[in-house]
Amino acid sequence: MRMRKKPGTEDKLAVIGDLLVRKPEELKGHWRRAFSAEQPVHLELGCGKGQFITGLAARHPGISFVAVEIKGEVILQAIERAEAMGLTNVRFIHGNVRHLHEWFAEDEVSHLYLNFSDPWPKGRHDKRRLTHHRFLKSYSRILTASGWVHVKTDNRDLFEFTLNQCLDLDLKLKNISLDLHGILPRGKYERSVQEDIVTTEYEDRFTRMGLPIYYAEISLRPIKAKP
Amino acid sequence: MRMRKKPGTEDKLAVIGDLLVRKPEELKGHWRRAFSAEQPVHLELGCGKGQFITGLAARHPGISFVAVEIKGEVILQAIERAEAMGLTNVRFIHGNVRHLHEWFAEDEVSHLYLNFSDPWPKGRHDKRRLTHHRFLKSYSRILTASGWVHVKTDNRDLFEFTLNQCLDLDLKLKNISLDLHGILPRGKYERSVQEDIVTTEYEDRFTRMGLPIYYAEISLRPIKAKP
Repeated sequence: MRMRKKPGTEDKLAVIGDLLVRKPEELKGHWRRAFSAEQPVHLELGCGKGQFITGLAARHPGISFVAVEIKGEVILQAIERAEAMGLTNVRFIHGNVRHLHEWFAEDEVSHLYLNFSDPWPKGRHDKRRLTHHRFLKSYSRILTASGWVHVKTDNRDLFEFTLNQCLDLDLKLKNISLDLHGILPRGKYERSVQEDIVTTEYEDRFTRMGLPIYYAEISLRPIKAKP
Repeated sequence: MRMRKKPGTEDKLAVIGDLLVRKPEELKGHWRRAFSAEQPVHLELGCGKGQFITGLAARHPGISFVAVEIKGEVILQAIERAEAMGLTNVRFIHGNVRHLHEWFAEDEVSHLYLNFSDPWPKGRHDKRRLTHHRFLKSYSRILTASGWVHVKTDNRDLFEFTLNQCLDLDLKLKNISLDLHGILPRGKYERSVQEDIVTTEYEDRFTRMGLPIYYAEISLRPIKAKP
């Protein structure tokens, strides 16, 4: 959904508090120390209005969260939400995911979240999907070997694309769900606690509409190991 | 769907022609020679009324097909269909898949098809699902190392279960589709020619209803390699 640009967004971003990191490149290699406590860093790409990342941050004070969002009007709402909640373990980057390697050093991120990423439905735009193999390869550098990429989407085609990109790269997958909030018994496989509880705005809306949410966890270790 | 047992099924099965293999255990290790030409053997478990296997057999005279079905009333229709089509490269086994190893020797099957298998929705019945890891392990013995299991279903929960069983066993997957007959561009991944063309009765009905068909190909090589 394209949002109308609200007047004054740039002004508001200019005066907003410390949760917005204005020069993320200066923190490259030092993110663990950028927070009041030195602890693991989890990263969300495309945080939208921030329901997910702030929910996660509130529940996990022992983890530092960084959220990237390209839309100024949207990230402003996420930052305001985090401030209203009094969170100290979350930071925001207003920018394009393509600059990830200017902001983060190798092995600096423990977990990566991709929630309801733009599906870019046209075939010729597949390189823009955040689970395109070029992106997955780029994430593997900043993610620790034991880290996981957590993918959640309502878009069947994006999810199918994601699974096949992973298979092509021989990545390890786990906890695939084709209906994350389904009422039917889900079998006995492991489920990440935070993923079970914390939802996004999109997710709540789609779930209320009875539409399935797709979910998977991806280990990038196999491509990380390669030179 | 439970079918009413039509009177005379056993009588009809008793007099039906050579396409029904009455003592499959006697062909164990000799299936390639059981047909007029010595050629690769493909196996379908649960062929229903036979639209898929007869369609495949008609298109691929260079392959020998064997279809297993437990329901007498149903396999009778499949056999009658194959006879009416004048097929010589297909045989039928009326029996329970649990006896697979009494019928087939190691490496005797090149490809295995599981189409719209019973989803056994209750959690405590998961061992009966034909993609339960116990079944996958048992298929690995009769399937060649280069062979693939082709899974097609309309049941989201069975498909999710299947994918996770494969991930747990570290099996190789390819060509996952969450909407096999969808009109949206499917990306560039490979698709088996026969799978694109030959459909089952269920599949036609579900596709007409606009419901997605799930599909994946599974290599059992990783568990086959293990002692």
